[in-house]
Order: sequence, then C-alpha cells, then structure tokens
Amino acid sequence: MSGSEIEALIKIMSRLPGLGPRSARRAVLQLMRKREHLLGPLAEALIAARDAIVTCGTCGNIDTSDPCVICADPRRDHQVICVVEDVGDLWALERAVATRGVYHVLGGTLSALDGVGPDSLNLSGLAGRCGPDTELVLAMNATVEGQSTAHFIMDMLSNRGVKISRLAHGVPVGGELDYLDDGTLAAAMRARLPMSE
Amino acid sequence: MSGSEIEALIKIMSRLPGLGPRSARRAVLQLMRKREHLLGPLAEALIAARDAIVTCGTCGNIDTSDPCVICADPRRDHQVICVVEDVGDLWALERAVATRGVYHVLGGTLSALDGVGPDSLNLSGLAGRCGPDTELVLAMNATVEGQSTAHFIMDMLSNRGVKISRLAHGVPVGGELDYLDDGTLAAAMRARLPMSE
Repeated sequence: MSGSEIEALIKIMSRLPGLGPRSARRAVLQLMRKREHLLGPLAEALIAARDAIVTCGTCGNIDTSDPCVICADPRRDHQVICVVEDVGDLWALERAVATRGVYHVLGGTLSALDGVGPDSLNLSGLAGRCGPDTELVLAMNATVEGQSTAHFIMDMLSNRGVKISRLAHGVPVGGELDYLDDGTLAAAMRARLPMSE
Repeated sequence: MSGSEIEALIKIMSRLPGLGPRSARRAVLQLMRKREHLLGPLAEALIAARDAIVTCGTCGNIDTSDPCVICADPRRDHQVICVVEDVGDLWALERAVATRGVYHVLGGTLSALDGVGPDSLNLSGLAGRCGPDTELVLAMNATVEGQSTAHFIMDMLSNRGVKISRLAHGVPVGGELDYLDDGTLAAAMRARLPMSE
C-alpha cells in the first residue's frame, strides 16, 4: 500500500491519545498532503520541544526551564502549594486561574493494583517544601485512587503542623441536578451553605 | 502556563484532522510524558517521512518511490486504471483489495464554487495513460462534485474509445435498509439483479 516510512509514521501516530488506527491514517494523509505547511513544522516543533522540555526539580511540572515559570514567579504565593496528580491537572487549574499559589505534581496516584507505591510518586520533596505557614491544597481527582492518595499525604504530614485543605465537592457551575450522580448530589447537600455567602 | 515550544507544538497538533485544541493538548501532554518512547520516535518518523515521500509522477499517489510501488508492480493489471479523488480513497480500495489494476489520483474534484477547474486537478496525464485496451474505472465519491468530475472525464475521453465504468451503487454489505438514505435505496432498486448472480 505505501512505503515503510509512511507505515511507521501511522503506527506511531495511532499511539497518541484520541487517535485510533483510522484517524491516525487520516492525520498522516493530511500531513503528507501539506508537507510544507504541516509535516515540516510539526517535525520541527517536536524536535524543539524534545530539546527544550525539562521536568521542574521543585514541583515536577514539565516546562522549558527548571525551575518552571510558575516556581520561578515571585508574584506567586509560594506558601500555597496545590498538589495535583498530573501536569494536565496543573494546566486545567492554570486555565481556570484557580489559584495564585504554586504546584506539586505527583505524577500519578497510589494504586496497590497497579503496583504504584509512595516511592513511585514525586512525594519525597513535598515535605521539604512545607514550612510552618504553608497551606497544602490537595487537588487530586475525586476518584478512589485520588482520595486515598490524598489521605496518604495527610497521614504523611500529620505531625508537621501543615494546614491541609481539599477542593470542594458540589454541583458543577452550570450543571443540572437531573444529570448529576448521586454521590455529587449527596456531597453538595452535606456541604450546603447559608444563602448569604 | 508552559513554555513557548510547548504552546507551539499544541498549536500545530491541533491542526491535524480529528484533533481539536483540547485533544491536541492531551496528545502533547502524553508526548511529553513519554519523551523517550513517543516524542522522540514520532519526531524521527516525521523527519524520515518528510525526506522519503514523493508524489508518483505516473499516477499521483504519495509514496516513498517514484514510480510508486503500485505503478512499478508488474503483477498489476496496467490496463485497468482506477481514477480516485484522493490518496485516502486509493488506500481504502487497497485495503479492500478491490482491484488488481493501477490508479490515477486526481487530487480533488472539480468545484466551480471553490474555483477548482480541470487545470487544478491531475488530469493532464490521464489521457496519455489510456491505450485502446484500457478500462477506466471512475471511483469518485458518490457526491455531486465527484459525479460531475466523473462526467467531465467521460466527456474528455469520449472520442478516444476508452472503456469507462463506474463503481456500483447499492446497499452496503451488512447495511440495514431502515438506516439507508432514500437515494441509495432507489439506486439499489434500479440496479437490482437476478437472484442467480
């Protein structure tokens, strides 16, 4: 059907999230049609990214500098450390401008099933970042793994006097009650607030 | 949020078909997580493809050699030329092992609205490929543009005595009548065949 370089490219493209074999083929076809304007620039952008990106030694973020732009930003509140599972979660919180604090990226969650213990996560540096005035916001996903990881971190830091909080559960902004799961509805009811707030 | 190289990569990735801004971000995140096993190999595969792929001077296929493997294959029937709109259609016919003939890739369809005239398509070489024993199978999409392009080619070659056929219309194999559009059903009824065939 086509040369081995094309087959190899389709095979690698199909390993990207969101692309199956069929859409990878379509993407490669588009790349080959637009050799000058898409294939070349994409190859160069990948090389540039490969050469530039590093993992931040402070927080575990992936960026083009170490420390990353967030850790290096003096306008950030370095006393508020938002602990997230993944760089994608950090990006989501940044898009939402949810915090002016800094982050700590764990790189996953504890999972006995998958053999992910505390040593597999970026936990060792976390305690060292916590001073007496630090607030740790545990922004893990609201999954079993995320929540057990949050509890593990609470236990780990329990005797250090660190202030620890977690994200609120409740009705998503714009969400309709009828479409919400029971757990979210029950959590939102338990955490109900006086109307004045 | 992240370095300019990462932003640039997301921007280019989001131009691939099937990837929007959100899924491009997810793909780039995955690439950065798997720098060794995904980002590097993808960059190298793109460079290799960019350097290797050429457009076949005979049929317009995109391949790593000119003439392409199909045009260079002596076991193919070079008297049967399947005219397709696009390389993706050629790939689809090859996957289906639909023909042992060769191809001619137009690179699009005639479209007065989009300003695509005969000169914009790979039509000039087609007449030269047609001998007295040639069968031309017009395998354009069953769209208005595809069909008017097919008619244009028929007119263009009308005084050359070339045998011209088209793909059959009908019920897709495995298709259910209830879900078929009226045009297909009417075409299948008009083209009904005796049960013995």
